[in-house]
Amino acid sequence: MSDTLERLAAVLAERRDADPQSSYVAQLHHRGLNKILEKVGEEATETLLAAKDVKADDEQSRQALVGEVADLWFHSLVMLSHLEVDHRAVLDELARRFGVSGLDEKAARQPSP
Amino acid sequence: MSDTLERLAAVLAERRDADPQSSYVAQLHHRGLNKILEKVGEEATETLLAAKDVKADDEQSRQALVGEVADLWFHSLVMLSHLEVDHRAVLDELARRFGVSGLDEKAARQPSP
Amino acid sequence: MSDTLERLAAVLAERRDADPQSSYVAQLHHRGLNKILEKVGEEATETLLAAKDVKADDEQSRQALVGEVADLWFHSLVMLSHLEVDHRAVLDELARRFGVSGLDEKAARQPSP
Amino acid sequence: MSDTLERLAAVLAERRDADPQSSYVAQLHHRGLNKILEKVGEEATETLLAAKDVKADDEQSRQALVGEVADLWFHSLVMLSHLEVDHRAVLDELARRFGVSGLDEKAARQPSP
Repeated sequence: MSDTLERLAAVLAERRDADPQSSYVAQLHHRGLNKILEKVGEEATETLLAAKDVKADDEQSRQALVGEVADLWFHSLVMLSHLEVDHRAVLDELARRFGVSGLDEKAARQPSP
Repeated sequence: MSDTLERLAAVLAERRDADPQSSYVAQLHHRGLNKILEKVGEEATETLLAAKDVKADDEQSRQALVGEVADLWFHSLVMLSHLEVDHRAVLDELARRFGVSGLDEKAARQPSP
Repeated sequence: MSDTLERLAAVLAERRDADPQSSYVAQLHHRGLNKILEKVGEEATETLLAAKDVKADDEQSRQALVGEVADLWFHSLVMLSHLEVDHRAVLDELARRFGVSGLDEKAARQPSP
Repeated sequence: MSDTLERLAAVLAERRDADPQSSYVAQLHHRGLNKILEKVGEEATETLLAAKDVKADDEQSRQALVGEVADLWFHSLVMLSHLEVDHRAVLDELARRFGVSGLDEKAARQPSP
């Protein structure tokens, strides 16, 4: 399971130039960056709403959140692929930030501009 | 590298109940779900802006996007941890959707509600 | 023109309980708060993208931004109507913040939580 | 009250070139479009969260939503001002869409691209 992102990125790379009629991924690339970013924004919104709707004892609400986060990560990967940025650079960045002693984790975070 | 998310999720679980003064993660949990979701929304916005600013021959613009996506995934993981949803459920969902033959990938995507 | 929001709010109030089949506004109310908020989030994303695409000498790009901001304000008004919050409270809040001498405008802003 | 937006837009125009040290508006313009758009995205997120937290009998929760929508509209106006787009074009667009008979309101909406 640990390399799901790896395998998914490989699938996304392969489908990038597929026939837009047969592949949702190819269709997104064909429609262009703005369309892909609209989907990222849309899934981020749906993630927030699903998170607000999670109830501790309601498994369905947790599964709904899982589905939205999957959509958010999926469309982030499509975006990276569209811009030819390797998703492993993101994992490396996360590893770099967290390959540090606990206390200074905050200092190590590269602040958002 | 393939299990960066795995290790990161373990670090996040460990820091969840740490002293908010010594850990950014503990601080986020302490401030609560809305604060964490504000960060998810903020990083999603910054991801969109960084993606619009990527220029093919400008390595710095690509590195800026990598940093924003790292922030977005990081805060999604903190959100999942806060709501006690295992991040592996998200990876499982992605695997489930993509463990299918190419042509029906679209049909297999669980549509956003 | 100055009371466009006023007239629009009146139209929205009137259509709130209309037949969902004949009115987009009634349809949104019928589908509920999350659907309305998804639209607010979606139009916010489209506003950001349209703003990034504005070019000083390209009237079409400016008109696209106008359309997205109209969509954003429109769906904010539907949201307020759905939650039975009078849009004039928002205008009052803006007037209150700005009915002050220029220099302390920042101090007067009620900071986001 | 009906021309609050009108007066606010005038104030924003005036402060656009003010000293960034004395005016929050001037400071936003000085920091540039991305900073302004980050604020629009941030306030959109906070609007969604505040809307999810509104409880029918809780006046404070409704006032919190009012404050967030005020922030969202305010920063949209700063964005329009930054890009030299007249906010009245947005009101005109809303009037145009709604100066139509009820039933075809949906058809009259300019669909988001």
